[in-house]
Amino acid sequence: MTDMKPDNASSSPDVLIAGLAKSARSAQRQLAAMSSDARAAALRLAAQRLRDDSAAILAANQKDLEAGRANGLSKAMLDRLSLDKERLHGVADGVEAVANLPDPVGEVIDSLERPNGLKMSRVRVPIGTIGIIYESRPNVTADAAALCVRAGNAALLRGGSEAVFSNRAILAALTAGLEEGGVPDAAVQLIPTQDRAAVGAMLTAAGLIDMIVPRGGKSLVARVQSDARVPVLAHLDGINHTYIHSAADAQMAKGIALNAKLRRPGICGSMETLLIDSGFAEPAALVSALLDAGCELRGDGRAQALDTRIFPASNDDWDTEYLDAILSVSMVDGMDAALAHIARHSSAHTDVIVTSDDSVAEQFLTEVDSAIVMHNASSQFADGGEFGLGAEIGIATGRLHARGPVALEGLTTYKWLVRGTGQARP
Amino acid sequence: MTDMKPDNASSSPDVLIAGLAKSARSAQRQLAAMSSDARAAALRLAAQRLRDDSAAILAANQKDLEAGRANGLSKAMLDRLSLDKERLHGVADGVEAVANLPDPVGEVIDSLERPNGLKMSRVRVPIGTIGIIYESRPNVTADAAALCVRAGNAALLRGGSEAVFSNRAILAALTAGLEEGGVPDAAVQLIPTQDRAAVGAMLTAAGLIDMIVPRGGKSLVARVQSDARVPVLAHLDGINHTYIHSAADAQMAKGIALNAKLRRPGICGSMETLLIDSGFAEPAALVSALLDAGCELRGDGRAQALDTRIFPASNDDWDTEYLDAILSVSMVDGMDAALAHIARHSSAHTDVIVTSDDSVAEQFLTEVDSAIVMHNASSQFADGGEFGLGAEIGIATGRLHARGPVALEGLTTYKWLVRGTGQARP
Repeated sequence: MTDMKPDNASSSPDVLIAGLAKSARSAQRQLAAMSSDARAAALRLAAQRLRDDSAAILAANQKDLEAGRANGLSKAMLDRLSLDKERLHGVADGVEAVANLPDPVGEVIDSLERPNGLKMSRVRVPIGTIGIIYESRPNVTADAAALCVRAGNAALLRGGSEAVFSNRAILAALTAGLEEGGVPDAAVQLIPTQDRAAVGAMLTAAGLIDMIVPRGGKSLVARVQSDARVPVLAHLDGINHTYIHSAADAQMAKGIALNAKLRRPGICGSMETLLIDSGFAEPAALVSALLDAGCELRGDGRAQALDTRIFPASNDDWDTEYLDAILSVSMVDGMDAALAHIARHSSAHTDVIVTSDDSVAEQFLTEVDSAIVMHNASSQFADGGEFGLGAEIGIATGRLHARGPVALEGLTTYKWLVRGTGQARP
Repeated sequence: MTDMKPDNASSSPDVLIAGLAKSARSAQRQLAAMSSDARAAALRLAAQRLRDDSAAILAANQKDLEAGRANGLSKAMLDRLSLDKERLHGVADGVEAVANLPDPVGEVIDSLERPNGLKMSRVRVPIGTIGIIYESRPNVTADAAALCVRAGNAALLRGGSEAVFSNRAILAALTAGLEEGGVPDAAVQLIPTQDRAAVGAMLTAAGLIDMIVPRGGKSLVARVQSDARVPVLAHLDGINHTYIHSAADAQMAKGIALNAKLRRPGICGSMETLLIDSGFAEPAALVSALLDAGCELRGDGRAQALDTRIFPASNDDWDTEYLDAILSVSMVDGMDAALAHIARHSSAHTDVIVTSDDSVAEQFLTEVDSAIVMHNASSQFADGGEFGLGAEIGIATGRLHARGPVALEGLTTYKWLVRGTGQARP
């Protein structure tokens, strides 16, 4: 798939990554010089190729599944790994959807003319080469590559060892389609070894790789954040709060709380802590609805007093991302106490207030310093698609570059263009 | 100046930095809750206080200068360290100028309404706590603190040991003025020890410090980039090219080249390599003008043939930031050769084309992937003030978050606000 020599895989990880990154850089320059329409057309060809090659891809996936079963992978892991015709067509549809997204590259962010006649403007450009490190889901190979290519970036992909055959088959289809559309094949490459040292080499390839996006569990992300010398766009925890204010509509509060926790308890936008104002009219009915729906509740003393089915919360519960049908519940005395709890325990992902008092809501929206702050909505809306961004590369919980759901714009940077008529600086 | 206990300076660097950062975080929340006008007014009071306290600050500066002379600091170092009434008033004026800059905080970047009625908007907010690590210039204490405070950020300042008395005196005046204006004094703090381990503790204070800005020489920046776990906004090299295209006006080319190299050879926007197209009409007059003006030239074979005073360039010269009246010169055959040279050797800071052919210029502006790309202007314009940004915290040569001259906007991030009416996700 790439111009590397066959013996590269046996050389040192740093040399291997440097070689791949160098060919990626050169492919990226060609990709960036293509028109936006040409990149989109190439992605449509890649989507078609994923459909055309589905038999080969599903056969490769079977090999991974067999190896996974032999290696005793959990049922959940095998499910994440597993592809069928429908899932694969969904992956192809996703690539097509990315092709149809508006291209941020070339957008003029702002411009001005100086008194000396110099005309300055800031224009969006691709970031360059993006390293994606992910675990068992083979669809990430196509999703991440498509987003990178749409915004003119090269992608260096390091998938999980469980999915190695699936990833190779998906990459082969993708790059065949992209090449047909004029995208050099080195624009999207898989790291050809499962040696963990290759990940270390990616993380320290400053100047060769421009950004790393880890997609996976907390231990992967934590390792990437601690070892990386390359800038990282990462999602760590989603310890999300929903504050039921005293002026909340009881029916709305119940609907939002049930949805925020139980629609899909395992996603990062799931509520993990419910804060109930001591002035709220119907706290017992609220917790009862959650308990009746099968949610385990862990409460502080006053919350426990609402229902005998509530377990006592430990200190750790307020800082725990359950990703399960478990919820910590605290009773708080007013807005200041709610804000203080959130400032102390939130992972700054998504925090929500439910209230019918708009001025209280505005205070909450202003003072809570999280990537996403919501009024009267379920935290499960924390998703690039729901924000109208199309696909997302991830939800960033850091503070720099991009925050919250990150899509194409987050895969670009800008440069300054200065147009003069011979000006020298006095 | 801060609420730390007096024995903190003797505890471990990590504990020290964690304590300072914790008080900074709390002060930052108060600062962010102030109105933009209130922050500006407090900065004006701080500027006034710098003027009022000039005797004390200049006396402190004398102590630093005496110690510097005793320690054998170079004349250039002593000059960077030295303050007089005029320089100090310039520092105060700078703080006032920052107060007068438009505040990016609160700006709505974009907004949309989704089909389900959810209203999303992105709003600029402060980054949080910013660590500034700098060397001998005491004016950075005031400049950097003012920029941070204007955009609602707390500043943790680590100045050079040569300027310790000056920095303390400037900080005392600054925080006195800010406090008068309602800004908590922990919003701007100096690290109270010159122990180098404190810098290491700042660099690894992920979650406590949100961004590090190193301001100083290459060795400081390189150390920060290699050791930091906190995101870094850094300026590394300024290996800037000026390409004299075949269709360049000879008079304009000469004016721009002389200015780009010799106006102030030691600034990061200074030209370091001159690329002369082999089709350019008057190359000998161009290099002659530079030589006559006292510039040392180091050329490739064809450049050397233009004038006997040109030394041969070594391979290293093409990758050297001289920061002096020295320039490397290469003859190139057309645009593609110029682009290839720049792609290989540029540090992606500022690259320039001089040409009267606008379509050639547009190609250069599009294809050169540097933070600043200029047409018919001197690279010495690479400066926040010249870009209309007011003061700058620095020029970033990285690719993420902010690129090129970084001012107030680069000291902000954003959050997503979502306003609903009870929506649950299907």
